[in-house]
Amino acid sequence: MILEGEHRRSIRRTEDGKGACILDQRKLPWEVKWVELRTADDAAVAIRDMWTRGAPMIGATAAYGLAMALAADPSDAGLEAGYQLLVETRPTAINLRWALDTVKAEVAGLAPEARAEAAFAKADAIADEDAAMCRSIGEHGLELFRELHAKHPDRPLNILTHCNAGWLATVDYGTATAPIYLAHDAGIPIHVWVDETRPRNQGALLTAFELKNHGVPHTVIADNAGGLLMMKGQVDAVVVGTDRVTANGDVCNKIGTYLKALAAADNDVPFYVALPYTTFDPNTASGVDIPIEERSAEEMTHLSDGQGTVQITQSPAANPAFDVTPARLVTAYITERGVLDRI
Amino acid sequence: MILEGEHRRSIRRTEDGKGACILDQRKLPWEVKWVELRTADDAAVAIRDMWTRGAPMIGATAAYGLAMALAADPSDAGLEAGYQLLVETRPTAINLRWALDTVKAEVAGLAPEARAEAAFAKADAIADEDAAMCRSIGEHGLELFRELHAKHPDRPLNILTHCNAGWLATVDYGTATAPIYLAHDAGIPIHVWVDETRPRNQGALLTAFELKNHGVPHTVIADNAGGLLMMKGQVDAVVVGTDRVTANGDVCNKIGTYLKALAAADNDVPFYVALPYTTFDPNTASGVDIPIEERSAEEMTHLSDGQGTVQITQSPAANPAFDVTPARLVTAYITERGVLDRI
Repeated sequence: MILEGEHRRSIRRTEDGKGACILDQRKLPWEVKWVELRTADDAAVAIRDMWTRGAPMIGATAAYGLAMALAADPSDAGLEAGYQLLVETRPTAINLRWALDTVKAEVAGLAPEARAEAAFAKADAIADEDAAMCRSIGEHGLELFRELHAKHPDRPLNILTHCNAGWLATVDYGTATAPIYLAHDAGIPIHVWVDETRPRNQGALLTAFELKNHGVPHTVIADNAGGLLMMKGQVDAVVVGTDRVTANGDVCNKIGTYLKALAAADNDVPFYVALPYTTFDPNTASGVDIPIEERSAEEMTHLSDGQGTVQITQSPAANPAFDVTPARLVTAYITERGVLDRI
Repeated sequence: MILEGEHRRSIRRTEDGKGACILDQRKLPWEVKWVELRTADDAAVAIRDMWTRGAPMIGATAAYGLAMALAADPSDAGLEAGYQLLVETRPTAINLRWALDTVKAEVAGLAPEARAEAAFAKADAIADEDAAMCRSIGEHGLELFRELHAKHPDRPLNILTHCNAGWLATVDYGTATAPIYLAHDAGIPIHVWVDETRPRNQGALLTAFELKNHGVPHTVIADNAGGLLMMKGQVDAVVVGTDRVTANGDVCNKIGTYLKALAAADNDVPFYVALPYTTFDPNTASGVDIPIEERSAEEMTHLSDGQGTVQITQSPAANPAFDVTPARLVTAYITERGVLDRI
């Protein structure tokens, strides 16, 4: 996407080639701060303390982190120590482990002096692959958007999205946002309704930040508003990302996704889920089998911007992080390999 | 309901009988401040500047305000001036005009020296009637709650509500909250999921304040969470208030109500609308005929507690205040005359 006036990826090598630059997302959108990760420890802190987030970005950051570990100590012991340091930062992140395994397999058979360069090259390849995959999701989604826009060519195409399945969570383009960026770049007039996405407000903070920088017209709304907008004919499609799609097609995604899928079905609005193929999980039968993470109540009871904090309520709060959208409510899955009406 | 340890109404006469006490709701729940309204001007300010809100409370406050006007000047001119002052505070509030007309009709034929006392008595009667009406709504709802609790007598009855159709908006009990208070007082174990109700957070602020003071167990949740809770079997019924029910049974209520009604229908959870009979509007055919109020974007983009303000987003925002829940999604309407399965 476009940031600060030019096409940027969310992770890139430093100018000397020996580190990686990422945004410190904890301060977004109030402060746009690029940080240089120059050691494996830097990368571990960035992942553990959530300077960066999203499975692809965590994987790419870890891959570069392991290359930095090998630049400091290319021995077998150095490789193993770097791997352990990084894999423990987010123990449940599948893509983190996959990226580290990929780099390790690439370099383990090499002479120590060749390892760091090969590892950086593999990390570049991982980042390139992710960007290409998201672009491909975007291209397939773009065709759907062209068809939708052709139905009402006299007005902008209105897309509603929830949370942030965007550039900030991937190396480029995002998943749910990829068709939006490509449609905008292709000259299709597009406007995005951005769900605030309580309680962590990833929509109001992160997705809105992305769209603003890329120049895509958008409007932030309360999570409560989408149903009315669909009823009034002001939404042409809903596009969301997902953390996991089970064998039967159920979609695990940010809390509140299910409510938008219900409203879309009730108003004949297409409901699309954008995802890399690896997000399909054939080993989980259905959404009822997914345990729902319960996060800290404080995320509900207090809200901060860059400057201050306000209290939302004096009462106890609950904070389930995800919900399950039944497959019957999904119009299609947009993947890098094409659009699937059912799986 | 119980407040500060004793049963309180949200409006009552001052000890000397010559004014009225209300809560300044603008500071709730951070500061519980009773204010004495001693003149018609005080009452007009309290209504206009939203120290108090909700159709019944606005009506009762205006009725007492007109009595205070007559205490100061019981002439025909005083009656007319007081009426005009108060009726212009919220020009679209039907119940405000009704209450003023009722008091005026009561006193217009009396000698001036008898008017103030008669007006106070009529204002008392209006308040008593409202409290009795809400109590009656509560009693009818209580029977539904008893039946629901009997299905799962081993655990608390879980009710979900949206916004504040509570004590603070009426003279006592509230509408949607009336069955909750009566069930709690009757010893039925009850727990309430309180929708935060973005963007103005009436749930997290006002409904939670009420339930906390009355001692009803409750948990504040993001508006996004209700769908998951219903899917998981953690909601036995949804109860909401309404601003207007059209001739075909469509329900106009706070933005987001429709999404909860969809989730309730999808999970076979009863969806109840609690309302005084006067809220039925036979002159509007259906919900599509209701214009939706678009409120200030700043209510979305900034959030304050008693102490500070945080910014939600740097992007443009929209703020539709109400949505329409189609009659087909409503299980029953709970009124002071009884429970209507359809209208």
